[in-house]
Amino acid sequence: MNFSNLLADRTRNMGSSAIRELLKVVEQPGMISLGGGIPAPESFPLQLFDDLTSQVLKKYSSNALQYGPSEGFRPLREALVVYLKKSDIRTSVDNITITCGSQGVLDSIGKILISKGDKIAVEAPTYIGALSAFNPYEPEYIALETDYDGVIPESLEKALKHNKIKFVYLIPTFQNPTGRTIPLERRKKIAEIIRYYNALLLEDDPYSSLRYRGEAIPAIKTMAPDNVLYTSTFSKILAPGLRIGFSVGPELITKWMVLAKQGIDLHTNTFSQALAAEYIEGGHLDKHLPRILSIYKPKQEAMLNALAKYFPGNFQWSKPAGGMFIWAEGPSGFSTEKLYCKALERKVAILPGQYFYPHPGMGLETMRLNFTMMDAPTIDKAIKILSEVIKEELSRVSMSYS
Amino acid sequence: MNFSNLLADRTRNMGSSAIRELLKVVEQPGMISLGGGIPAPESFPLQLFDDLTSQVLKKYSSNALQYGPSEGFRPLREALVVYLKKSDIRTSVDNITITCGSQGVLDSIGKILISKGDKIAVEAPTYIGALSAFNPYEPEYIALETDYDGVIPESLEKALKHNKIKFVYLIPTFQNPTGRTIPLERRKKIAEIIRYYNALLLEDDPYSSLRYRGEAIPAIKTMAPDNVLYTSTFSKILAPGLRIGFSVGPELITKWMVLAKQGIDLHTNTFSQALAAEYIEGGHLDKHLPRILSIYKPKQEAMLNALAKYFPGNFQWSKPAGGMFIWAEGPSGFSTEKLYCKALERKVAILPGQYFYPHPGMGLETMRLNFTMMDAPTIDKAIKILSEVIKEELSRVSMSYS
Repeated sequence: MNFSNLLADRTRNMGSSAIRELLKVVEQPGMISLGGGIPAPESFPLQLFDDLTSQVLKKYSSNALQYGPSEGFRPLREALVVYLKKSDIRTSVDNITITCGSQGVLDSIGKILISKGDKIAVEAPTYIGALSAFNPYEPEYIALETDYDGVIPESLEKALKHNKIKFVYLIPTFQNPTGRTIPLERRKKIAEIIRYYNALLLEDDPYSSLRYRGEAIPAIKTMAPDNVLYTSTFSKILAPGLRIGFSVGPELITKWMVLAKQGIDLHTNTFSQALAAEYIEGGHLDKHLPRILSIYKPKQEAMLNALAKYFPGNFQWSKPAGGMFIWAEGPSGFSTEKLYCKALERKVAILPGQYFYPHPGMGLETMRLNFTMMDAPTIDKAIKILSEVIKEELSRVSMSYS
Repeated sequence: MNFSNLLADRTRNMGSSAIRELLKVVEQPGMISLGGGIPAPESFPLQLFDDLTSQVLKKYSSNALQYGPSEGFRPLREALVVYLKKSDIRTSVDNITITCGSQGVLDSIGKILISKGDKIAVEAPTYIGALSAFNPYEPEYIALETDYDGVIPESLEKALKHNKIKFVYLIPTFQNPTGRTIPLERRKKIAEIIRYYNALLLEDDPYSSLRYRGEAIPAIKTMAPDNVLYTSTFSKILAPGLRIGFSVGPELITKWMVLAKQGIDLHTNTFSQALAAEYIEGGHLDKHLPRILSIYKPKQEAMLNALAKYFPGNFQWSKPAGGMFIWAEGPSGFSTEKLYCKALERKVAILPGQYFYPHPGMGLETMRLNFTMMDAPTIDKAIKILSEVIKEELSRVSMSYS
């Protein structure tokens, strides 16, 4: 039986993620992957977890296993109000919604806001999962220009001035894929622009807790609270398999997200929400986070050191103070898609950067490098191999010019 | 800040669930609710649960907490292949998708199949959560006629003959809201019609495990496997808070559901999927299900007995052999909306049936009665009070005629 005649128009926009296909090769034995984007399993509080489940069952009994409200498990929303205050995000329980990962926020925002052809402004490059969430609702993307300090405010202002933009989507801190962070002054400018144009900003902040150096920078949410729907996740500070994300919204957006969520999944997993609540309230997050940082910091340093040691002079890369990714760019005309194929033969997997752009043909010379899944010596080895392949490619390219 | 100008066209179809509003009163102290639809907390395997979490953490370690594939945790999908075989549903791991409750199946099916104005055939009345899932994709509903044996095959045939129907949605066993079950012979006819018209049936089967009397009736999936996307859930046989649903699909539908799911929530909670896998594989479901049945059977009998004892002669009601609901109908012209208000004053909550119809103005004299949440004596008391209110209403109505 072939039901392809039944597919909705929007389904054409759901092509299989190229990244998903590329990453399938990563599972080959002996492959060193710089291509993934998942947390190190040793960063999960596995020892604690068994105790945490017992505590939660004792504390909430059958309520931890029962249906719950679409907006989320109240003790978790209450714990988040206190937790967010530490980052100067002041909100009330009523403005917090719990979702199935922050992906759940992206999907429901797409669902309630995007009509076909609506314009969404996104960084170029941006998180590919956001594009997967928005695509089925058939938006048009306005690509915002970025530099090594993230989105360029003038580009944002131009976009808002000349277009009717439904919302702006930004990842201001340790962005996926670039690792870039928007500095304080630029954030203030962005907040001012957003407020001036009475625009809605979806601020995605999954990585800011993973800071290995320097001072925390306040979220744009703190600078334009009424204009920002802030979203984050427990995926990087507890465990991604629990699928607990949350949003801190303007009231009306929150209200409609909750209505949409009734149709999407009724509500998020109660048991995992109770675990996340206990993880914060019991002080476990505060104790465990330094351990996570101590795992990632040396890995990230190993990658930055290896890049400095091995990469050719005509390559540039981001030097983030946290997060999970480094973004590298070759000279104009260099193809990281070709590099991907050649590096695979040497058992190193990378992710070409072009898939992170909202429009095809951009970022052909870029790549995303992840450092969370390997130990420091393996990272050094992988970057060394990658550099060798790059140099072969560069010489091949320059020969083809001659 | 008011962002209501930003809402997508489809968002107009997401009005707050009337049921949700009606059920808010249920939380008042002293209220006896026949209006809800949730499992009894004492039906959860709470004692077992603590052991189950430890076993899962020992067995799968950090894999139980890590990101997982969008199609679902493989050990759960493998366990389901074996489990479904007992109900004569023969499938392979590749055709099984795990979702956030069966609500997740309804949403993703809506997403991949429904373009604005597409026709969906549903029972009248039907599960309101299905309407909430489909509504945002802006379908038109074709209401299928039903009697005490569920959907009438001739009505289905007529609908398929005269309309281009995207899919048919049915709950053949212990339907929500009516409790009705389609008998074997009628299922065979339905399977034949579906096959003849090369139609797609979404067969929602959350309740068939909750059988208190009589023989199991095979799913329509067993009779037209290529035309049916079968969906069920762990909400009634383990715990709804885990949000684990699944579908057994025709291959192409499954493939597109998985693509859609990448944008919706990446994947379903890994830890809960591992718990569900262990619950089946370890033989716990087989041991625990009789306990669940022993909790519900006397409650359901209490309600059927009380209805026979107290309800007036011009009322009819379903006598299901399982599930969670009984459907009662007053004489033509009787308003269960008014009954709802009057019964509330006597501290008994019911759910007017009209909200379960795809079109307004239908089922004004109907109501759904749930028996899972109270003990037998309380059920008897509630039905007695309800009967008194009904009789007052009936005499008031007859007086207003005279």
